[in-house]
Amino acid sequence: MIVIPRLTLEDALAIMEAAEAKARELGVPETICICDEGGNVITLHRMNEARITGVEIAMAKAYTAAGHKRATHLFNRPGGPALPGGEAFGIQMMHPGKFAIFVGGFPLEAHGRVVGGIGISGGTGEQDTAVGDAALAAFRELVERQHVM
Amino acid sequence: MIVIPRLTLEDALAIMEAAEAKARELGVPETICICDEGGNVITLHRMNEARITGVEIAMAKAYTAAGHKRATHLFNRPGGPALPGGEAFGIQMMHPGKFAIFVGGFPLEAHGRVVGGIGISGGTGEQDTAVGDAALAAFRELVERQHVM
Amino acid sequence: MIVIPRLTLEDALAIMEAAEAKARELGVPETICICDEGGNVITLHRMNEARITGVEIAMAKAYTAAGHKRATHLFNRPGGPALPGGEAFGIQMMHPGKFAIFVGGFPLEAHGRVVGGIGISGGTGEQDTAVGDAALAAFRELVERQHVM
Amino acid sequence: MIVIPRLTLEDALAIMEAAEAKARELGVPETICICDEGGNVITLHRMNEARITGVEIAMAKAYTAAGHKRATHLFNRPGGPALPGGEAFGIQMMHPGKFAIFVGGFPLEAHGRVVGGIGISGGTGEQDTAVGDAALAAFRELVERQHVM
Repeated sequence: MIVIPRLTLEDALAIMEAAEAKARELGVPETICICDEGGNVITLHRMNEARITGVEIAMAKAYTAAGHKRATHLFNRPGGPALPGGEAFGIQMMHPGKFAIFVGGFPLEAHGRVVGGIGISGGTGEQDTAVGDAALAAFRELVERQHVM
Repeated sequence: MIVIPRLTLEDALAIMEAAEAKARELGVPETICICDEGGNVITLHRMNEARITGVEIAMAKAYTAAGHKRATHLFNRPGGPALPGGEAFGIQMMHPGKFAIFVGGFPLEAHGRVVGGIGISGGTGEQDTAVGDAALAAFRELVERQHVM
Repeated sequence: MIVIPRLTLEDALAIMEAAEAKARELGVPETICICDEGGNVITLHRMNEARITGVEIAMAKAYTAAGHKRATHLFNRPGGPALPGGEAFGIQMMHPGKFAIFVGGFPLEAHGRVVGGIGISGGTGEQDTAVGDAALAAFRELVERQHVM
Repeated sequence: MIVIPRLTLEDALAIMEAAEAKARELGVPETICICDEGGNVITLHRMNEARITGVEIAMAKAYTAAGHKRATHLFNRPGGPALPGGEAFGIQMMHPGKFAIFVGGFPLEAHGRVVGGIGISGGTGEQDTAVGDAALAAFRELVERQHVM
């Protein structure tokens, strides 16, 4: 066996707080989900007036980013692997309802590993990305403050 | 808690009546579904001779329009977000069988909110849209007659 | 249309806080989910060391309690309707993965209505119930403090 | 963040080797799956002539044992929680196709934690259990040899 870092609920809620603060600043109701490196949800918050469809979408974005170790917008950018003709076209069908191939999912990386993922649904791609950036910045601060490994 | 408007069955049937009248006028057998803002069906009518596949499709269109707060034809029009390369490509797979990205689903908006959705399946895009327009006109009249909020 | 009360994220997090406090007091890692009256998730927290299977289970318990307007333990108590021979035997198969018929889901009732549900998974039936009781007490306090309707 | 132990492929294959040796000794073709503590498969071997249905079953048994931190035969033994009237009746429906409530799934426990699960499908309950016992013994030896945490 090896040892790996694992996000706690407290870690996830600190990241969540930063994400929600940015969403409020932008005035966009988001649904935000954070999962661990096994793709299992740690926390989900659906902000007031956020779309109900955001629950599944945010979960899928977090799962994909953590599980596939890749930001979800990379799948369908120009030349991206999930576009028709791309080398992973249809990949989302391998995990029905769980695999997102569009903007809003970001891996959480620390100590040279992906330790989880965050998924954001509710805004434009630009807004979801801004919320994701705020979350990632809070995560990096948290990693620096802790001395886990 | 806050308070929000909620469609009643009577509201939904008034909207349904207008939709069916338009479908009969056009001579097209439609399946029509109306759901509340939580995405839960209030009523579904499958007109005589309408395709049996219309049940799931109309439900999905109503769910998507209400839950994602967007008319379904906006997802796949030219430049639409659900097209390959669009910023929501693959979004329909996050809710397998429930999320429609083609013409025929319309959000019901009142008092500055989406309060439900209507889904129409059975005709051409043009016919489904004409039925939807008639339904939305009936809904707006209904909202003006009532003084809910 | 009518008006109905709707839980906010702030309401849900206040209830969540009381639930988590009780779980910590009992020393049992729980997954807790709160949804609105439409059955749509508002928040989910998986406590450190809680089972990963608790995510789906807590969501299902919250959905069932809110959507079916009944505490989930009532389905399979002696003589309960979901037991073999009971008048709702097999009801959970109508909503695969979403309908729970065992202890841990409780409707949130206020103003003469079910306004949401809470689902708790991770402890024994007794522990999950104690956490649910703490959550319901916090919810009642919250309702009394607010003057929504 | 905290640190947790994580099974490697080498660990899993050592456990697998012991399981297969026992199955050959018993003359029973088994499908054997080992997953990590996040419920994600590390390895699966279907022995010659083993039933094809064993793939999904062994995966479900490993997932359940790891994710719910409980041997699967405990769910439906006399008085078991998944039996009608038990406090988890219907639990398997919360994860359709993934949650097994019958003999053949065993959690892998080390350092005071569940670090994974093994699922065995193909023999009688007695045979699957004998294979599981051999696997667990190999796992314990492996844990004692290593000094991970």
